[in-house]
Amino acid sequence: MWLKILHVLFLLFLMINEDSGSSHEPKVISAYKDLQKYEAKWESLDKRPLPRWYDDAKVGIFIHFGVYSSISFGSEWFWTNWKNEKVPSYIEFMNRTQKPSFTYQNFAADFTCELFNATEWAEIFSDSGAQYVVLTSKHHEGYTLYPSSYSFSWNSVDVGPNRDIIKELSQAVRDKKLKFGLYYSLFEWFNRMYQSDKQDGFLKHKYVDNKVWPELIEIIERFEPEVIWSDGDWEAPDEYWKAKEFLAWLYNSSPVRETVVTNDRWGLGTNCKHGDFFTCSDRFNPGVLQKHKFENAMTIDKKSWGHRNDAKLDDFLTSAELIRELVTTVAVNGNLLVNVGPTKYGTIEAIFAERLRDMGRWLRMNGKAIYGTRPWEYQNEGKDIWYTMKVGSNRMSVFAIALEYPFDTNKIVFNKIGSYMDSSSHVTLLGYPDKISHKFIGSDKSLEITFPEKRLTDKLGLSLAWSFEIDISLNSSSSSIFSILEM
Amino acid sequence: MWLKILHVLFLLFLMINEDSGSSHEPKVISAYKDLQKYEAKWESLDKRPLPRWYDDAKVGIFIHFGVYSSISFGSEWFWTNWKNEKVPSYIEFMNRTQKPSFTYQNFAADFTCELFNATEWAEIFSDSGAQYVVLTSKHHEGYTLYPSSYSFSWNSVDVGPNRDIIKELSQAVRDKKLKFGLYYSLFEWFNRMYQSDKQDGFLKHKYVDNKVWPELIEIIERFEPEVIWSDGDWEAPDEYWKAKEFLAWLYNSSPVRETVVTNDRWGLGTNCKHGDFFTCSDRFNPGVLQKHKFENAMTIDKKSWGHRNDAKLDDFLTSAELIRELVTTVAVNGNLLVNVGPTKYGTIEAIFAERLRDMGRWLRMNGKAIYGTRPWEYQNEGKDIWYTMKVGSNRMSVFAIALEYPFDTNKIVFNKIGSYMDSSSHVTLLGYPDKISHKFIGSDKSLEITFPEKRLTDKLGLSLAWSFEIDISLNSSSSSIFSILEM
Amino acid sequence: MWLKILHVLFLLFLMINEDSGSSHEPKVISAYKDLQKYEAKWESLDKRPLPRWYDDAKVGIFIHFGVYSSISFGSEWFWTNWKNEKVPSYIEFMNRTQKPSFTYQNFAADFTCELFNATEWAEIFSDSGAQYVVLTSKHHEGYTLYPSSYSFSWNSVDVGPNRDIIKELSQAVRDKKLKFGLYYSLFEWFNRMYQSDKQDGFLKHKYVDNKVWPELIEIIERFEPEVIWSDGDWEAPDEYWKAKEFLAWLYNSSPVRETVVTNDRWGLGTNCKHGDFFTCSDRFNPGVLQKHKFENAMTIDKKSWGHRNDAKLDDFLTSAELIRELVTTVAVNGNLLVNVGPTKYGTIEAIFAERLRDMGRWLRMNGKAIYGTRPWEYQNEGKDIWYTMKVGSNRMSVFAIALEYPFDTNKIVFNKIGSYMDSSSHVTLLGYPDKISHKFIGSDKSLEITFPEKRLTDKLGLSLAWSFEIDISLNSSSSSIFSILEM
Amino acid sequence: MWLKILHVLFLLFLMINEDSGSSHEPKVISAYKDLQKYEAKWESLDKRPLPRWYDDAKVGIFIHFGVYSSISFGSEWFWTNWKNEKVPSYIEFMNRTQKPSFTYQNFAADFTCELFNATEWAEIFSDSGAQYVVLTSKHHEGYTLYPSSYSFSWNSVDVGPNRDIIKELSQAVRDKKLKFGLYYSLFEWFNRMYQSDKQDGFLKHKYVDNKVWPELIEIIERFEPEVIWSDGDWEAPDEYWKAKEFLAWLYNSSPVRETVVTNDRWGLGTNCKHGDFFTCSDRFNPGVLQKHKFENAMTIDKKSWGHRNDAKLDDFLTSAELIRELVTTVAVNGNLLVNVGPTKYGTIEAIFAERLRDMGRWLRMNGKAIYGTRPWEYQNEGKDIWYTMKVGSNRMSVFAIALEYPFDTNKIVFNKIGSYMDSSSHVTLLGYPDKISHKFIGSDKSLEITFPEKRLTDKLGLSLAWSFEIDISLNSSSSSIFSILEM
Repeated sequence: MWLKILHVLFLLFLMINEDSGSSHEPKVISAYKDLQKYEAKWESLDKRPLPRWYDDAKVGIFIHFGVYSSISFGSEWFWTNWKNEKVPSYIEFMNRTQKPSFTYQNFAADFTCELFNATEWAEIFSDSGAQYVVLTSKHHEGYTLYPSSYSFSWNSVDVGPNRDIIKELSQAVRDKKLKFGLYYSLFEWFNRMYQSDKQDGFLKHKYVDNKVWPELIEIIERFEPEVIWSDGDWEAPDEYWKAKEFLAWLYNSSPVRETVVTNDRWGLGTNCKHGDFFTCSDRFNPGVLQKHKFENAMTIDKKSWGHRNDAKLDDFLTSAELIRELVTTVAVNGNLLVNVGPTKYGTIEAIFAERLRDMGRWLRMNGKAIYGTRPWEYQNEGKDIWYTMKVGSNRMSVFAIALEYPFDTNKIVFNKIGSYMDSSSHVTLLGYPDKISHKFIGSDKSLEITFPEKRLTDKLGLSLAWSFEIDISLNSSSSSIFSILEM
Repeated sequence: MWLKILHVLFLLFLMINEDSGSSHEPKVISAYKDLQKYEAKWESLDKRPLPRWYDDAKVGIFIHFGVYSSISFGSEWFWTNWKNEKVPSYIEFMNRTQKPSFTYQNFAADFTCELFNATEWAEIFSDSGAQYVVLTSKHHEGYTLYPSSYSFSWNSVDVGPNRDIIKELSQAVRDKKLKFGLYYSLFEWFNRMYQSDKQDGFLKHKYVDNKVWPELIEIIERFEPEVIWSDGDWEAPDEYWKAKEFLAWLYNSSPVRETVVTNDRWGLGTNCKHGDFFTCSDRFNPGVLQKHKFENAMTIDKKSWGHRNDAKLDDFLTSAELIRELVTTVAVNGNLLVNVGPTKYGTIEAIFAERLRDMGRWLRMNGKAIYGTRPWEYQNEGKDIWYTMKVGSNRMSVFAIALEYPFDTNKIVFNKIGSYMDSSSHVTLLGYPDKISHKFIGSDKSLEITFPEKRLTDKLGLSLAWSFEIDISLNSSSSSIFSILEM
Repeated sequence: MWLKILHVLFLLFLMINEDSGSSHEPKVISAYKDLQKYEAKWESLDKRPLPRWYDDAKVGIFIHFGVYSSISFGSEWFWTNWKNEKVPSYIEFMNRTQKPSFTYQNFAADFTCELFNATEWAEIFSDSGAQYVVLTSKHHEGYTLYPSSYSFSWNSVDVGPNRDIIKELSQAVRDKKLKFGLYYSLFEWFNRMYQSDKQDGFLKHKYVDNKVWPELIEIIERFEPEVIWSDGDWEAPDEYWKAKEFLAWLYNSSPVRETVVTNDRWGLGTNCKHGDFFTCSDRFNPGVLQKHKFENAMTIDKKSWGHRNDAKLDDFLTSAELIRELVTTVAVNGNLLVNVGPTKYGTIEAIFAERLRDMGRWLRMNGKAIYGTRPWEYQNEGKDIWYTMKVGSNRMSVFAIALEYPFDTNKIVFNKIGSYMDSSSHVTLLGYPDKISHKFIGSDKSLEITFPEKRLTDKLGLSLAWSFEIDISLNSSSSSIFSILEM
Repeated sequence: MWLKILHVLFLLFLMINEDSGSSHEPKVISAYKDLQKYEAKWESLDKRPLPRWYDDAKVGIFIHFGVYSSISFGSEWFWTNWKNEKVPSYIEFMNRTQKPSFTYQNFAADFTCELFNATEWAEIFSDSGAQYVVLTSKHHEGYTLYPSSYSFSWNSVDVGPNRDIIKELSQAVRDKKLKFGLYYSLFEWFNRMYQSDKQDGFLKHKYVDNKVWPELIEIIERFEPEVIWSDGDWEAPDEYWKAKEFLAWLYNSSPVRETVVTNDRWGLGTNCKHGDFFTCSDRFNPGVLQKHKFENAMTIDKKSWGHRNDAKLDDFLTSAELIRELVTTVAVNGNLLVNVGPTKYGTIEAIFAERLRDMGRWLRMNGKAIYGTRPWEYQNEGKDIWYTMKVGSNRMSVFAIALEYPFDTNKIVFNKIGSYMDSSSHVTLLGYPDKISHKFIGSDKSLEITFPEKRLTDKLGLSLAWSFEIDISLNSSSSSIFSILEM
């Protein structure tokens, strides 16, 4: 007993001195030790600049795919809802549809993916306007979508499709010139090594040393993902996960050290605080400008990340709602990560494909207001008008995006923007060939624009949201512009 | 050998005298013999008037649901494509995904329907604006969706869901005040009794006597369907099926004799010729007025009636295409039977639900131009304007439905109709509160109407197709109206 | 009309130019009328002499093989024990091992027979000394071991092994020069046609007409079985089954009319009363002479006819018990039908094979006392000595078979037999080369024999039962012999 | 930072207030340091005396049970025969019976054990006369029969029976007062960590450190097995396995350090050289005296350790052959480990039970000549007479066991033994009440005994092998006895 207490006091001491854990470092670290650009401390790691590709990309596709796709009931949290939370509807579902000795793992046999065609997926994603794709390499269930050396008989080659899903998809996605990233759940609900560490108050690292570190290194060295989307971190402090050591390795020495981006889920308390981009909570759409780059990871099926057969039509975002998510997110410094839950057959259901196709159509007309933009001085007026901007050498554009059509007046007033405009400025509606008539009103030089007749924009296919580009000369504009640009 | 030849000659004789088959009549007929309103001859059967509910209903839902839903590959013709036609893609699919001894029947175990909720289906159908629902009681595979006495171990209670699907759905549909009908495939590709009869040149009736007759009577007496949608008839003459005898029983004696409607698939050569309504070919949309009531049975998934996992987004009709099918069908004296292929889980996928919801929204605004109408003097102008009419006591309405918006002019000209109008006539746009301005142009008094500004109709939710109601006085109209009404 | 006439003429033409498929034709009604050797009355049918092959054969193999083999729990009555009788252990087994919607029919998928090799079976049976083999073509479950035209999707080609088990086994058995017979269950517990007839007090014959008759005819015409082993008759009178009509057809007109034998299970009250041989009750071993030829159908697994995984070693007859069954049965005018329950894999478990091999070894030494014999004047002394006899032209043999070894005395006394013997008579022990010393004792000339030293007979492999052949001259023997032979 | 310090202090508090879970702690490195009785060197380890219970026990039961039991084809080496060796019959079997994407792991779902009753097994083993039971905790496939912390989703709780087989059986076996041991395969054919180490020339220990060590410690601490039966060692030297370190821990510090015995399979070259007992090769029955205690691990099914459905009757040892194995093994200083392959249902097939029952019957009569004996001066005469001995305080017994009955003479001559006998000596036949007449013949005082009449010993149930006990006085016997006893 006292031995343990002393052990904990020792750990405490290590923490205070913030150099703990180094003796437990897997050997792979030492191999890269010569590239110590970043130290395994947050104040050092936090200094890493965000790779630009990510900030410019704005839209990514998230894919939740695993054994839960084959159960396809409730959500991808099926296992814990059933076994830990004992949610009655899950218990009832299992009692009704399976024999008593049926285990979660048995569902893997039904995760067949016989229609999985990575090229078809990549086409759908590419056509959606997304610039990157993030796939669950392993969710909380522990099942890996590649033949992990550390997950024998619980991966997509050993049970289920008998295919290396990550390998197939990463190649297809990169063939389409999209970036490819991997989601990785740190914890596994039912991994007995993890459960044992947890029972020991996370003072031992049996699970981290035997499973997390080697597997993370394996996926990075094997697939070179441009995004590491960590999750399942929240039950333990980052010291348990040895997260800082991992990130130092990732940034200093890994094969993707130049391009990779990671999120903020690296242990209790890191969320919304450390990481290349913040995700904060799921479906994070703060509505106000975020100083630090963030990502709104959200779902087309409002209630689940994984596929579920019990989804109703009303559970799916409409295309208009999806565009609203996109615009409101990008305007406040976020990327949108649109989640799709494919079926166990390996297909993307038509309702998802339709939403993505609609987003793609919109982005082909309106992408100028999204890709490569940065937040404008102010982000919105009310809930239906949002701004972005893009700066050129002599001129810049402010994009004002209307999420609702002004049916009654056919006019919209954009506050204040007139003060940045001069006679050389003009206003265009993305996707519409002619200039848009505008005038300034009021003392603050608000900009009133009038829509063309709706039948004319409809004929061109404009819908869902209307993006006005306001052209501004950098030479003549008020000094306030420069303060904005320095943000 | 000569015995057989003589037998055929005898059959020939019977045919010439058109009274064959009566000696083979199942006993159930005799019980109803006292109600001989119709004789088992086409000239008698063809005289039966079409029950009015059917002509007024205009829109029905067709459901293809069976073991093919659980395979969900290619189409509901999987079995024959695989085993008889030996279509390479089907053979490849089976070779790749199943063991060699796997039979079609094995798929039934996977037809689980664990999420099947008849009430939810009925709500979706009711909200779609449909007035009746036709379910496959048995498709060409032979599997019945109720515990048929004549299909032991090959029905939905014995293998698969362990539920009486017809019973559950018929109750739910009727609770929603919709009519309920049953599709029934006369032949079964692989039924050995049928195959034997076929080999014998359809001169024996082993299959018909042991299977078709008793099963048809069973479903009618048990479920009292308002529609009997016969199919799978085409390999044999109606004499083989004893179809005339069946129809005479159905019309004279069955419990649904007052209300039932049947189609025209009662044997080689009956198609498009005999029956309460004609279906002619699948997806029959003739474009010109049909003297005899017909039904356009068509599919939302353009390539399959049953669910298939390999359907792509482009394979589904858009909502606009669906409304076009509806309008063009009703205008020429047809009903539209919109097919849905539910999943083996017993769910209706969101993409189907979305199309049906859109049709329902349109019908709630435009149903006046559809339900209870009859064809007008002429049916269309070009491919985008179609007509229906409805007659009241003193006045009547002609409905002119525009399938495309006149983006360029905002105006449409309806030919000739002006000659039926007088000063009391007015024009309205269904769903729009104000009168529509119109004028007559040209010597034939064509009617030119002008749409309200599009933003105003969009605001009200008008879309997909726009229905103009042209109000005509019966008192003052030209005599030609009456000739039309007497059609 | 003329189209159809042409169609029929075309069919006619086809028939003239093809060779007929008439052998598949059920010719019941027409065919048996012209060969009225037997009338469809018991007093006529009962006059048919038993085909001699059967009386000579003495030993047959019974095989219970079906979907119950794949459940392999309890017995082949699993279905009714579970669903009708609701036996708690069966319900518990299902609740524990299967999902709630699991039906009996689902077990068929697991009836795979992947190791079934008919030739191997036939070798085991042939080596066992059996002379005929009776296979369940269909047990009470209704599942047929061939592609029945009347059991679509509930037979061994459509679900399960995807093989025609009867065809394969009948050929292999006949290649070994054994006779081949078929068991057929008249009723089917869960056939809805049967249930309906039963509910109607067996006054309707829907099930008999649509299922039993055509299927019986099909198996007879297709496989020409030498035994029809009827069962499942007891709930209804023979009139319901139309049994007399069937037997008349079988005896008069069927392809097996010369050689076939049938049992006595043809309807309530026929048991032990009508039929070529009687079976009375299962495992019928009456212990006293039966005037009418009978068959003791019994099982090596004492508690089940079908295979069951829950059988314990003690549930199996020992080889000595099996030989006892054989000897005691044959001595009183019976045949022994030894039942084997193969596994769902299509194998015969070693414990069965061992018993059959032991019986075969015994029969190779002692067969002379069994095959072709007839009962002797008296059948046994006590429970351990039993008699048979065989008559030649001038001499005859009486066989006295000792089922227990006289460990204490090494001698046995056979009562009375001495009175038939004269000086030319001798006694031999089957399998032992030298004459056996004997003497007569007592006034009734009982025969006392002395065994050779046991080590000498053991060395030769004699065991289980010891057959003494007592050679008798027909010329000189007392007249009483002749009265015996006339029995 | 302070948040985390508080978190740790809280954990500290929890620890003080809870009782420790220290028994689950792998204490390898720290714990065995203080008890350095044995060093991790072979010369030290080899000095450990064999625990006496094992030498006295003589007969154990070996159980091979795992996912291969569910395939039940060929042998327990199915996986490697199929995938590595590509044996045609295995490939053919898989092609014929499974779909192409079927993996070995999929068979686990079929390893149901629904009839597994550990008490029934223990009774069969106990009745067989065995004194210990060794169960495969994990075979080369890697699947563990308990919920291993290091084999997530590939163990009997996660997939298959959903039961802790080791726990259930160890309790039942110990309830019967038998010892319980565990087989453990060091390597796993398809474990990617192992494959990686192998590819690296066994210079890395990823697999040993992450899998073998922790798992071995887990099974020992959890189940405290009295036998550790190592296997699968041969591809790598013991240094790779860290075998000496493991054995030092096992002998010094493990909870079973006093009683455990291990075999000799601890790395390339250790076989037949190091270990508590030697196994050398499978079915090792050397026929000549072994200085070092050995074990003849052999199978009732001559061709497989695991259950296989394709076993034929001839593949099984007869009971006589089994007794021969036992006697010839014990006579030369071996134990017999009789292997049983249970079915996937969790049952022991009757043929195995029968052999074990026969061995038990024999041992109940002849056990005195087996249990607790030691080899005699010489071990056999020819192949049918074998010796053991047992020493008391004043007298000793030599057991001469005849494996064949002397059918021709009823006598046996045991060479030389007469020289140890004096007038007080007598000869008995185990199981027979009376003294056995004997005389000495020849110059070497060979002992000639005469069997009682065979019918008399048969009556008592003597069979299979006949054990003669030759009673010798230690006081008067020649000095050579003592040299024997000092062996």
